[in-house]
Amino acid sequence: MTRYKLTIAYDGTKFHGFQRQPKLRTVQGVLEKALFKMTKGKEIDVFGSGRTDAGVHAFGQVIHFDYPGEIPANSMLKAINSLMPLDVIVKDAQIVDNSFHARFGVKKKTYQYRVDCGHYTDPFKRFYTGHYPYKFDLKRIEESIKDLQGTHDFSSFAASGGVIENKVRTIYAATVKFDSVQNELIFEFTGNGFLYNMVRIMVATLLEIGNGRRDVHDFIRLYEAKDRQEARGTAPASGLYLKEVFY
Amino acid sequence: MTRYKLTIAYDGTKFHGFQRQPKLRTVQGVLEKALFKMTKGKEIDVFGSGRTDAGVHAFGQVIHFDYPGEIPANSMLKAINSLMPLDVIVKDAQIVDNSFHARFGVKKKTYQYRVDCGHYTDPFKRFYTGHYPYKFDLKRIEESIKDLQGTHDFSSFAASGGVIENKVRTIYAATVKFDSVQNELIFEFTGNGFLYNMVRIMVATLLEIGNGRRDVHDFIRLYEAKDRQEARGTAPASGLYLKEVFY
Repeated sequence: MTRYKLTIAYDGTKFHGFQRQPKLRTVQGVLEKALFKMTKGKEIDVFGSGRTDAGVHAFGQVIHFDYPGEIPANSMLKAINSLMPLDVIVKDAQIVDNSFHARFGVKKKTYQYRVDCGHYTDPFKRFYTGHYPYKFDLKRIEESIKDLQGTHDFSSFAASGGVIENKVRTIYAATVKFDSVQNELIFEFTGNGFLYNMVRIMVATLLEIGNGRRDVHDFIRLYEAKDRQEARGTAPASGLYLKEVFY
Repeated sequence: MTRYKLTIAYDGTKFHGFQRQPKLRTVQGVLEKALFKMTKGKEIDVFGSGRTDAGVHAFGQVIHFDYPGEIPANSMLKAINSLMPLDVIVKDAQIVDNSFHARFGVKKKTYQYRVDCGHYTDPFKRFYTGHYPYKFDLKRIEESIKDLQGTHDFSSFAASGGVIENKVRTIYAATVKFDSVQNELIFEFTGNGFLYNMVRIMVATLLEIGNGRRDVHDFIRLYEAKDRQEARGTAPASGLYLKEVFY
Protein backbone atom coordinates (compact mmCIF):
# COMPACT_ATOMS: atom_id res chain seq x y z
CA MET A 1 0.00 0.00 0.00
CA THR A 2 1.21 3.50 -0.84
CA ARG A 3 -0.06 6.63 0.87
CA TYR A 4 -0.96 9.58 -1.37
CA LYS A 5 -1.52 13.16 -0.29
CA LEU A 6 -3.64 15.17 -2.72
CA THR A 7 -4.46 18.85 -2.81
CA ILE A 8 -7.81 19.45 -4.44
CA ALA A 9 -10.05 22.37 -5.38
CA TYR A 10 -13.78 22.17 -5.75
CA ASP A 11 -16.81 24.26 -6.47
CA GLY A 12 -19.06 23.27 -3.57
CA THR A 13 -22.27 24.50 -5.18
CA LYS A 14 -23.52 21.12 -6.31
CA PHE A 15 -22.14 19.03 -3.48
CA HIS A 16 -23.85 18.06 -0.25
CA GLY A 17 -20.59 18.94 1.47
CA PHE A 18 -17.32 17.06 1.64
CA GLN A 19 -18.26 14.09 3.76
CA ARG A 20 -19.62 10.86 2.28
CA GLN A 21 -23.37 10.45 2.73
CA PRO A 22 -25.56 7.66 1.41
CA LYS A 23 -27.27 8.58 -1.89
CA LEU A 24 -26.02 12.19 -1.84
CA ARG A 25 -23.35 13.69 -4.07
CA THR A 26 -20.34 14.60 -1.91
CA VAL A 27 -16.68 15.33 -2.62
CA GLN A 28 -15.47 12.35 -0.63
CA GLY A 29 -18.04 10.27 -2.49
CA VAL A 30 -16.81 11.16 -5.99
CA LEU A 31 -13.18 10.62 -4.93
CA GLU A 32 -13.91 7.20 -3.44
CA LYS A 33 -15.93 6.25 -6.52
CA ALA A 34 -12.95 7.15 -8.72
CA LEU A 35 -10.60 5.03 -6.60
CA PHE A 36 -13.10 2.18 -6.71
CA LYS A 37 -12.90 2.29 -10.51
CA MET A 38 -9.11 2.56 -10.58
CA THR A 39 -8.69 -0.45 -8.31
CA LYS A 40 -11.40 -2.40 -10.15
CA GLY A 41 -13.56 -2.74 -7.11
CA LYS A 42 -11.55 -2.09 -3.96
CA GLU A 43 -13.16 0.22 -1.40
CA ILE A 44 -10.60 2.81 -0.39
CA ASP A 45 -11.25 5.30 2.42
CA VAL A 46 -10.44 8.92 1.66
CA PHE A 47 -9.48 11.13 4.63
CA GLY A 48 -9.91 14.88 4.34
CA SER A 49 -8.34 17.63 6.46
CA GLY A 50 -11.87 18.27 7.68
CA ARG A 51 -15.40 18.55 6.37
CA THR A 52 -16.77 21.41 4.42
CA ASP A 53 -20.51 22.04 4.39
CA ALA A 54 -22.87 22.01 1.42
CA GLY A 55 -22.09 25.01 -0.80
CA VAL A 56 -18.68 25.69 0.75
CA HIS A 57 -15.77 25.76 -1.72
CA ALA A 58 -12.12 24.77 -1.58
CA PHE A 59 -9.03 26.08 -3.31
CA GLY A 60 -6.76 23.78 -1.33
CA GLN A 61 -8.47 20.96 0.55
CA VAL A 62 -6.01 18.17 1.44
CA ILE A 63 -6.85 14.47 1.46
CA HIS A 64 -4.94 11.23 1.86
CA PHE A 65 -5.62 7.57 1.10
CA ASP A 66 -3.74 4.28 0.86
CA TYR A 67 -3.55 2.76 -2.59
CA PRO A 68 -2.69 -0.86 -3.39
CA GLY A 69 0.61 -0.85 -5.29
CA GLU A 70 2.66 2.20 -6.19
CA ILE A 71 2.19 4.44 -9.19
CA PRO A 72 4.07 7.72 -9.69
CA ALA A 73 2.42 10.72 -7.99
CA ASN A 74 1.94 12.53 -11.28
CA SER A 75 0.25 9.49 -12.83
CA MET A 76 -2.06 9.31 -9.83
CA LEU A 77 -2.94 12.98 -10.32
CA LYS A 78 -3.78 12.43 -13.99
CA ALA A 79 -5.68 9.21 -13.39
CA ILE A 80 -7.93 10.74 -10.74
CA ASN A 81 -8.45 13.94 -12.71
CA SER A 82 -9.60 11.89 -15.69
CA LEU A 83 -12.34 10.45 -13.46
CA MET A 84 -13.36 13.68 -11.71
CA PRO A 85 -16.45 15.70 -12.59
CA LEU A 86 -15.70 19.23 -13.79
CA ASP A 87 -16.35 20.77 -10.38
CA VAL A 88 -13.40 18.98 -8.74
CA ILE A 89 -9.76 19.20 -9.73
CA VAL A 90 -6.67 17.59 -8.25
CA LYS A 91 -4.00 20.30 -8.17
CA ASP A 92 -1.15 18.37 -6.60
CA ALA A 93 -0.32 14.78 -5.67
CA GLN A 94 2.53 13.47 -3.55
CA ILE A 95 3.58 10.11 -2.15
CA VAL A 96 3.95 10.47 1.61
CA ASP A 97 4.99 8.10 4.36
CA ASN A 98 2.46 6.35 6.54
CA SER A 99 2.87 8.83 9.38
CA PHE A 100 1.09 11.50 7.33
CA HIS A 101 -2.58 11.95 8.16
CA ALA A 102 -4.70 14.58 6.38
CA ARG A 103 -6.86 15.23 9.41
CA PHE A 104 -4.75 14.52 12.49
CA GLY A 105 -1.62 16.14 11.09
CA VAL A 106 -3.19 19.58 10.47
CA LYS A 107 -1.14 22.41 12.06
CA LYS A 108 -3.21 25.28 10.74
CA LYS A 109 -5.77 26.17 8.11
CA THR A 110 -6.61 29.29 6.16
CA TYR A 111 -10.19 30.11 5.21
CA GLN A 112 -11.23 32.90 2.88
CA TYR A 113 -14.65 34.51 2.96
CA ARG A 114 -15.85 36.73 0.10
CA VAL A 115 -18.70 39.23 0.47
CA ASP A 116 -20.23 40.95 -2.52
CA CYS A 117 -21.12 44.52 -1.57
CA GLY A 118 -23.27 45.33 -4.59
CA HIS A 119 -26.75 46.77 -4.27
CA TYR A 120 -28.41 43.80 -5.99
CA THR A 121 -27.67 40.10 -5.94
CA ASP A 122 -25.17 39.62 -8.77
CA PRO A 123 -26.24 36.73 -11.04
CA PHE A 124 -22.59 35.76 -11.47
CA LYS A 125 -21.75 35.73 -7.77
CA ARG A 126 -24.75 34.13 -6.12
CA PHE A 127 -22.97 30.80 -5.59
CA TYR A 128 -19.52 32.28 -4.92
CA THR A 129 -19.91 35.07 -2.37
CA GLY A 130 -21.98 36.18 0.55
CA HIS A 131 -23.91 39.38 -0.08
CA TYR A 132 -24.03 42.52 2.06
CA PRO A 133 -25.89 45.37 0.33
CA TYR A 134 -25.82 47.61 3.43
CA LYS A 135 -23.48 50.37 4.47
CA PHE A 136 -20.32 49.59 6.38
CA ASP A 137 -17.27 51.42 7.64
CA LEU A 138 -14.19 49.45 6.59
CA LYS A 139 -12.13 51.10 9.35
CA ARG A 140 -14.44 49.66 12.00
CA ILE A 141 -14.03 46.16 10.53
CA GLU A 142 -10.26 46.59 10.32
CA GLU A 143 -10.11 47.71 13.93
CA SER A 144 -12.40 44.96 15.14
CA ILE A 145 -10.76 42.08 13.29
CA LYS A 146 -7.58 42.59 15.33
CA ASP A 147 -9.49 41.31 18.36
CA LEU A 148 -9.84 37.92 16.69
CA GLN A 149 -6.12 37.24 16.69
CA GLY A 150 -4.77 35.24 19.59
CA THR A 151 -6.11 32.43 21.76
CA HIS A 152 -9.74 32.76 22.80
CA ASP A 153 -12.74 30.74 23.89
CA PHE A 154 -14.92 30.75 20.77
CA SER A 155 -18.04 29.26 22.39
CA SER A 156 -20.09 32.22 21.17
CA PHE A 157 -19.07 31.34 17.59
CA ALA A 158 -19.84 27.62 17.52
CA ALA A 159 -23.04 26.48 15.87
CA SER A 160 -25.08 24.16 17.98
CA GLY A 161 -24.71 20.62 16.78
CA GLY A 162 -20.97 20.52 17.33
CA VAL A 163 -19.84 17.89 19.81
CA ILE A 164 -16.44 19.34 20.65
CA GLU A 165 -16.08 20.25 24.32
CA ASN A 166 -13.01 22.46 24.18
CA LYS A 167 -13.84 25.61 22.29
CA VAL A 168 -10.54 27.40 22.75
CA ARG A 169 -8.79 28.07 19.46
CA THR A 170 -5.89 30.19 18.31
CA ILE A 171 -6.18 32.52 15.35
CA TYR A 172 -2.77 33.46 13.98
CA ALA A 173 -3.94 35.93 11.39
CA ALA A 174 -7.26 37.62 10.59
CA THR A 175 -7.34 40.14 7.76
CA VAL A 176 -9.83 42.04 5.65
CA LYS A 177 -9.36 43.92 2.42
CA PHE A 178 -11.75 45.62 0.06
CA ASP A 179 -11.37 44.66 -3.60
CA SER A 180 -12.71 47.70 -5.42
CA VAL A 181 -12.67 46.01 -8.84
CA GLN A 182 -14.89 43.17 -7.68
CA ASN A 183 -16.66 45.33 -5.09
CA GLU A 184 -16.01 42.60 -2.53
CA LEU A 185 -14.83 42.38 1.05
CA ILE A 186 -12.29 39.58 1.31
CA PHE A 187 -11.68 38.12 4.75
CA GLU A 188 -8.93 35.63 5.59
CA PHE A 189 -8.50 33.69 8.79
CA THR A 190 -5.60 31.40 9.67
CA GLY A 191 -5.93 29.35 12.81
CA ASN A 192 -5.08 26.05 14.47
CA GLY A 193 -8.67 24.95 14.18
CA PHE A 194 -12.17 26.24 13.54
CA LEU A 195 -15.42 25.22 15.20
CA TYR A 196 -18.53 24.34 13.24
CA ASN A 197 -19.70 27.45 11.32
CA MET A 198 -17.17 29.56 13.22
CA VAL A 199 -15.85 31.50 10.21
CA ARG A 200 -19.35 32.23 8.93
CA ILE A 201 -20.48 33.46 12.35
CA MET A 202 -17.37 35.65 12.74
CA VAL A 203 -17.97 37.22 9.32
CA ALA A 204 -21.64 37.96 10.12
CA THR A 205 -20.53 39.61 13.36
CA LEU A 206 -17.80 41.62 11.62
CA LEU A 207 -20.34 42.94 9.10
CA GLU A 208 -22.67 44.02 11.90
CA ILE A 209 -19.76 45.81 13.55
CA GLY A 210 -18.95 47.51 10.24
CA ASN A 211 -22.56 48.58 9.91
CA GLY A 212 -22.50 50.11 13.40
CA ARG A 213 -25.00 47.69 14.91
CA ARG A 214 -22.36 46.37 17.31
CA ASP A 215 -19.55 47.95 19.26
CA VAL A 216 -16.13 47.87 17.56
CA HIS A 217 -14.76 45.70 20.35
CA ASP A 218 -17.81 43.46 20.66
CA PHE A 219 -15.62 40.36 20.18
CA ILE A 220 -14.11 40.93 23.62
CA ARG A 221 -17.60 40.84 25.11
CA LEU A 222 -18.54 37.77 23.05
CA TYR A 223 -15.51 35.80 24.27
CA GLU A 224 -16.71 36.44 27.82
CA ALA A 225 -20.35 35.69 27.04
CA LYS A 226 -19.66 32.15 25.74
CA ASP A 227 -23.17 32.16 24.32
CA ARG A 228 -24.05 31.35 20.74
CA GLN A 229 -27.22 33.45 21.03
CA GLU A 230 -25.10 36.58 21.39
CA ALA A 231 -23.41 36.31 18.00
CA ARG A 232 -26.61 35.29 16.18
CA GLY A 233 -26.04 35.64 12.40
CA THR A 234 -24.30 33.16 10.12
CA ALA A 235 -22.99 34.30 6.73
CA PRO A 236 -24.04 31.96 3.89
CA ALA A 237 -21.96 28.96 2.82
CA SER A 238 -21.52 30.31 -0.72
CA GLY A 239 -18.87 32.86 0.34
CA LEU A 240 -16.61 30.42 2.17
CA TYR A 241 -13.44 28.87 0.73
CA LEU A 242 -11.02 26.47 2.40
CA LYS A 243 -7.89 28.10 1.02
CA GLU A 244 -4.94 26.20 2.43
CA VAL A 245 -4.09 23.49 4.95
CA PHE A 246 -0.69 23.45 6.66
CA TYR A 247 1.06 20.37 8.12
CA MET B 1 -49.34 51.61 -23.31
CA THR B 2 -45.95 52.73 -22.04
CA ARG B 3 -42.68 51.59 -23.55
CA TYR B 4 -39.93 50.50 -21.15
CA LYS B 5 -36.27 49.99 -21.94
CA LEU B 6 -34.48 47.67 -19.51
CA THR B 7 -30.82 46.81 -19.17
CA ILE B 8 -30.39 43.32 -17.78
CA ALA B 9 -27.57 40.99 -16.77
CA TYR B 10 -27.81 37.24 -16.73
CA ASP B 11 -25.78 34.16 -16.09
CA GLY B 12 -26.51 32.16 -19.25
CA THR B 13 -25.43 28.82 -17.82
CA LYS B 14 -28.90 27.52 -17.11
CA PHE B 15 -30.74 29.14 -19.99
CA HIS B 16 -31.40 27.72 -23.41
CA GLY B 17 -30.37 31.09 -24.77
CA PHE B 18 -32.24 34.39 -24.83
CA GLN B 19 -35.00 33.66 -27.28
CA ARG B 20 -38.35 32.21 -26.22
CA GLN B 21 -38.72 28.51 -27.01
CA PRO B 22 -41.62 26.25 -26.13
CA LYS B 23 -41.00 24.28 -22.92
CA LEU B 24 -37.40 25.48 -22.55
CA ARG B 25 -36.10 27.94 -19.97
CA THR B 26 -35.00 31.10 -21.78
CA VAL B 27 -34.32 34.68 -20.70
CA GLN B 28 -37.13 36.08 -22.85
CA GLY B 29 -39.35 33.37 -21.40
CA VAL B 30 -38.77 34.30 -17.74
CA LEU B 31 -39.23 38.00 -18.54
CA GLU B 32 -42.51 37.43 -20.38
CA LYS B 33 -43.70 35.17 -17.60
CA ALA B 34 -43.01 37.95 -15.06
CA LEU B 35 -44.93 40.49 -17.18
CA PHE B 36 -47.77 38.00 -17.53
CA LYS B 37 -47.98 37.88 -13.73
CA MET B 38 -47.74 41.65 -13.32
CA THR B 39 -50.53 42.27 -15.82
CA LYS B 40 -52.62 39.43 -14.39
CA GLY B 41 -52.68 37.52 -17.62
CA LYS B 42 -51.77 39.80 -20.51
CA GLU B 43 -49.25 38.40 -22.97
CA ILE B 44 -46.58 41.01 -23.53
CA ASP B 45 -43.86 40.59 -26.16
CA VAL B 46 -40.32 41.29 -25.02
CA PHE B 47 -37.86 42.48 -27.67
CA GLY B 48 -34.14 42.00 -27.07
CA SER B 49 -31.23 43.73 -28.81
CA GLY B 50 -30.49 40.31 -30.27
CA ARG B 51 -30.33 36.68 -29.24
CA THR B 52 -27.65 35.12 -27.15
CA ASP B 53 -27.02 31.39 -27.39
CA ALA B 54 -27.31 28.80 -24.64
CA GLY B 55 -24.54 29.36 -22.10
CA VAL B 56 -23.74 32.89 -23.29
CA HIS B 57 -23.88 35.57 -20.58
CA ALA B 58 -24.83 39.24 -20.50
CA PHE B 59 -23.68 42.16 -18.40
CA GLY B 60 -25.79 44.60 -20.38
CA GLN B 61 -28.43 43.07 -22.65
CA VAL B 62 -31.12 45.61 -23.57
CA ILE B 63 -34.81 44.82 -24.02
CA HIS B 64 -38.00 46.77 -24.54
CA PHE B 65 -41.70 46.06 -24.15
CA ASP B 66 -45.01 47.94 -24.07
CA TYR B 67 -46.81 47.85 -20.77
CA PRO B 68 -50.50 48.66 -20.23
CA GLY B 69 -50.65 51.78 -18.05
CA GLU B 70 -47.71 53.75 -16.72
CA ILE B 71 -45.75 53.03 -13.57
CA PRO B 72 -42.51 54.82 -12.63
CA ALA B 73 -39.38 53.30 -14.18
CA ASN B 74 -37.87 52.52 -10.80
CA SER B 75 -41.04 50.74 -9.67
CA MET B 76 -40.96 48.70 -12.87
CA LEU B 77 -37.35 47.75 -12.12
CA LYS B 78 -38.23 46.62 -8.60
CA ALA B 79 -41.39 44.80 -9.65
CA ILE B 80 -39.63 42.76 -12.33
CA ASN B 81 -36.61 42.05 -10.13
CA SER B 82 -38.92 40.68 -7.45
CA LEU B 83 -40.15 38.14 -10.02
CA MET B 84 -36.79 37.25 -11.55
CA PRO B 85 -34.87 34.07 -10.76
CA LEU B 86 -31.45 34.68 -9.18
CA ASP B 87 -29.61 34.32 -12.48
CA VAL B 88 -31.24 37.40 -14.03
CA ILE B 89 -31.10 40.95 -12.73
CA VAL B 90 -32.58 44.17 -14.07
CA LYS B 91 -29.85 46.81 -13.68
CA ASP B 92 -31.65 49.79 -15.18
CA ALA B 93 -35.14 50.72 -16.34
CA GLN B 94 -36.25 53.74 -18.34
CA ILE B 95 -39.46 54.92 -19.93
CA VAL B 96 -38.77 55.61 -23.61
CA ASP B 97 -40.89 56.90 -26.46
CA ASN B 98 -42.43 54.57 -29.00
CA SER B 99 -39.71 55.19 -31.57
CA PHE B 100 -37.23 53.25 -29.43
CA HIS B 101 -36.72 49.64 -30.54
CA ALA B 102 -34.27 47.37 -28.69
CA ARG B 103 -33.35 45.46 -31.83
CA PHE B 104 -33.79 47.81 -34.78
CA GLY B 105 -32.30 50.80 -32.98
CA VAL B 106 -28.94 49.18 -32.18
CA LYS B 107 -25.98 51.31 -33.33
CA LYS B 108 -23.24 49.12 -31.94
CA LYS B 109 -22.58 46.36 -29.46
CA THR B 110 -19.66 45.33 -27.32
CA TYR B 111 -18.93 41.69 -26.62
CA GLN B 112 -16.35 40.45 -24.14
CA TYR B 113 -14.74 37.02 -24.36
CA ARG B 114 -12.79 35.58 -21.42
CA VAL B 115 -10.27 32.75 -21.82
CA ASP B 116 -8.82 30.97 -18.82
CA CYS B 117 -5.17 30.12 -19.55
CA GLY B 118 -4.63 27.72 -16.63
CA HIS B 119 -3.17 24.27 -17.14
CA TYR B 120 -6.28 22.50 -15.86
CA THR B 121 -9.98 23.26 -16.18
CA ASP B 122 -10.71 25.49 -13.19
CA PRO B 123 -13.79 24.25 -11.30
CA PHE B 124 -14.80 27.85 -10.63
CA LYS B 125 -14.50 29.02 -14.23
CA ARG B 126 -15.95 26.20 -16.27
CA PHE B 127 -19.21 28.05 -16.93
CA TYR B 128 -17.68 31.52 -17.14
CA THR B 129 -14.67 31.33 -19.46
CA GLY B 130 -13.31 29.51 -22.44
CA HIS B 131 -10.16 27.52 -21.71
CA TYR B 132 -6.84 27.54 -23.56
CA PRO B 133 -4.17 25.54 -21.75
CA TYR B 134 -1.66 25.83 -24.62
CA LYS B 135 1.18 28.24 -25.21
CA PHE B 136 0.58 31.54 -26.91
CA ASP B 137 2.51 34.68 -27.74
CA LEU B 138 0.46 37.67 -26.62
CA LYS B 139 2.34 39.94 -29.03
CA ARG B 140 1.13 37.87 -31.99
CA ILE B 141 -2.46 38.18 -30.81
CA GLU B 142 -2.06 41.93 -30.24
CA GLU B 143 -0.63 42.35 -33.72
CA SER B 144 -3.27 40.19 -35.34
CA ILE B 145 -6.29 41.70 -33.62
CA LYS B 146 -5.61 45.02 -35.34
CA ASP B 147 -6.61 43.37 -38.63
CA LEU B 148 -10.14 42.92 -37.29
CA GLN B 149 -10.81 46.64 -37.05
CA GLY B 150 -12.54 48.21 -39.99
CA THR B 151 -15.16 47.09 -42.49
CA HIS B 152 -14.75 43.54 -43.78
CA ASP B 153 -16.67 40.66 -45.31
CA PHE B 154 -16.92 38.24 -42.39
CA SER B 155 -18.27 35.27 -44.40
CA SER B 156 -15.43 33.10 -43.09
CA PHE B 157 -16.62 33.87 -39.55
CA ALA B 158 -20.33 33.12 -39.88
CA ALA B 159 -21.60 29.80 -38.60
CA SER B 160 -23.72 27.94 -41.10
CA GLY B 161 -27.37 28.23 -40.17
CA GLY B 162 -27.43 31.98 -40.44
CA VAL B 163 -29.82 33.33 -43.04
CA ILE B 164 -28.30 36.78 -43.45
CA GLU B 165 -27.05 37.48 -46.97
CA ASN B 166 -24.88 40.49 -46.38
CA LYS B 167 -21.92 39.49 -44.26
CA VAL B 168 -20.11 42.80 -44.30
CA ARG B 169 -19.71 44.27 -40.82
CA THR B 170 -17.70 47.05 -39.25
CA ILE B 171 -15.64 46.49 -36.13
CA TYR B 172 -14.82 49.77 -34.40
CA ALA B 173 -12.58 48.37 -31.71
CA ALA B 174 -10.99 45.00 -31.03
CA THR B 175 -8.72 44.65 -28.02
CA VAL B 176 -7.01 41.99 -25.96
CA LYS B 177 -5.43 42.17 -22.55
CA PHE B 178 -3.95 39.60 -20.25
CA ASP B 179 -5.21 39.66 -16.67
CA SER B 180 -2.34 38.15 -14.72
CA VAL B 181 -4.32 37.92 -11.46
CA GLN B 182 -7.06 35.83 -13.06
CA ASN B 183 -4.67 34.27 -15.59
CA GLU B 184 -7.16 35.15 -18.31
CA LEU B 185 -7.07 36.63 -21.78
CA ILE B 186 -9.84 39.20 -22.08
CA PHE B 187 -10.99 40.11 -25.57
CA GLU B 188 -13.39 42.93 -26.39
CA PHE B 189 -15.05 43.64 -29.71
CA THR B 190 -17.24 46.61 -30.54
CA GLY B 191 -19.02 46.56 -33.87
CA ASN B 192 -22.14 47.57 -35.74
CA GLY B 193 -23.29 43.97 -35.83
CA PHE B 194 -22.05 40.44 -35.38
CA LEU B 195 -22.93 37.34 -37.40
CA TYR B 196 -23.98 34.08 -35.78
CA ASN B 197 -21.04 32.74 -33.70
CA MET B 198 -18.77 35.40 -35.20
CA VAL B 199 -17.10 36.44 -31.93
CA ARG B 200 -16.49 32.86 -30.88
CA ILE B 201 -14.97 32.00 -34.25
CA MET B 202 -12.76 35.12 -34.20
CA VAL B 203 -11.49 34.21 -30.72
CA ALA B 204 -10.69 30.63 -31.74
CA THR B 205 -8.76 31.98 -34.73
CA LEU B 206 -6.90 34.55 -32.59
CA LEU B 207 -5.81 31.80 -30.18
CA GLU B 208 -4.48 29.70 -33.07
CA ILE B 209 -2.56 32.73 -34.31
CA GLY B 210 -1.15 33.24 -30.81
CA ASN B 211 -0.12 29.61 -30.69
CA GLY B 212 1.73 29.94 -34.01
CA ARG B 213 -0.58 27.60 -35.92
CA ARG B 214 -1.69 30.43 -38.20
CA ASP B 215 0.08 33.37 -39.77
CA VAL B 216 -0.15 36.63 -37.79
CA HIS B 217 -2.06 38.23 -40.65
CA ASP B 218 -4.28 35.26 -41.41
CA PHE B 219 -7.39 37.41 -41.01
CA ILE B 220 -6.53 39.18 -44.28
CA ARG B 221 -6.49 35.81 -46.05
CA LEU B 222 -9.72 34.75 -44.34
CA TYR B 223 -11.58 37.89 -45.47
CA GLU B 224 -10.64 36.97 -49.05
CA ALA B 225 -11.45 33.29 -48.66
CA LYS B 226 -15.08 33.90 -47.60
CA ASP B 227 -15.21 30.29 -46.51
CA ARG B 228 -16.33 29.12 -43.08
CA GLN B 229 -14.21 25.97 -43.45
CA GLU B 230 -11.08 28.10 -43.35
CA ALA B 231 -11.64 29.50 -39.86
CA ARG B 232 -12.82 26.18 -38.41
CA GLY B 233 -12.78 26.45 -34.59
CA THR B 234 -15.46 28.02 -32.40
CA ALA B 235 -14.63 29.03 -28.82
CA PRO B 236 -17.21 27.78 -26.31
CA ALA B 237 -20.29 29.78 -25.33
CA SER B 238 -19.25 29.90 -21.66
CA GLY B 239 -16.62 32.61 -22.24
CA LEU B 240 -18.89 35.03 -24.11
CA TYR B 241 -20.57 38.09 -22.54
CA LEU B 242 -22.80 40.65 -24.21
CA LYS B 243 -21.29 43.63 -22.43
CA GLU B 244 -23.05 46.71 -23.75
CA VAL B 245 -25.53 47.80 -26.42
CA PHE B 246 -25.41 51.32 -27.84
CA TYR B 247 -28.34 53.19 -29.42
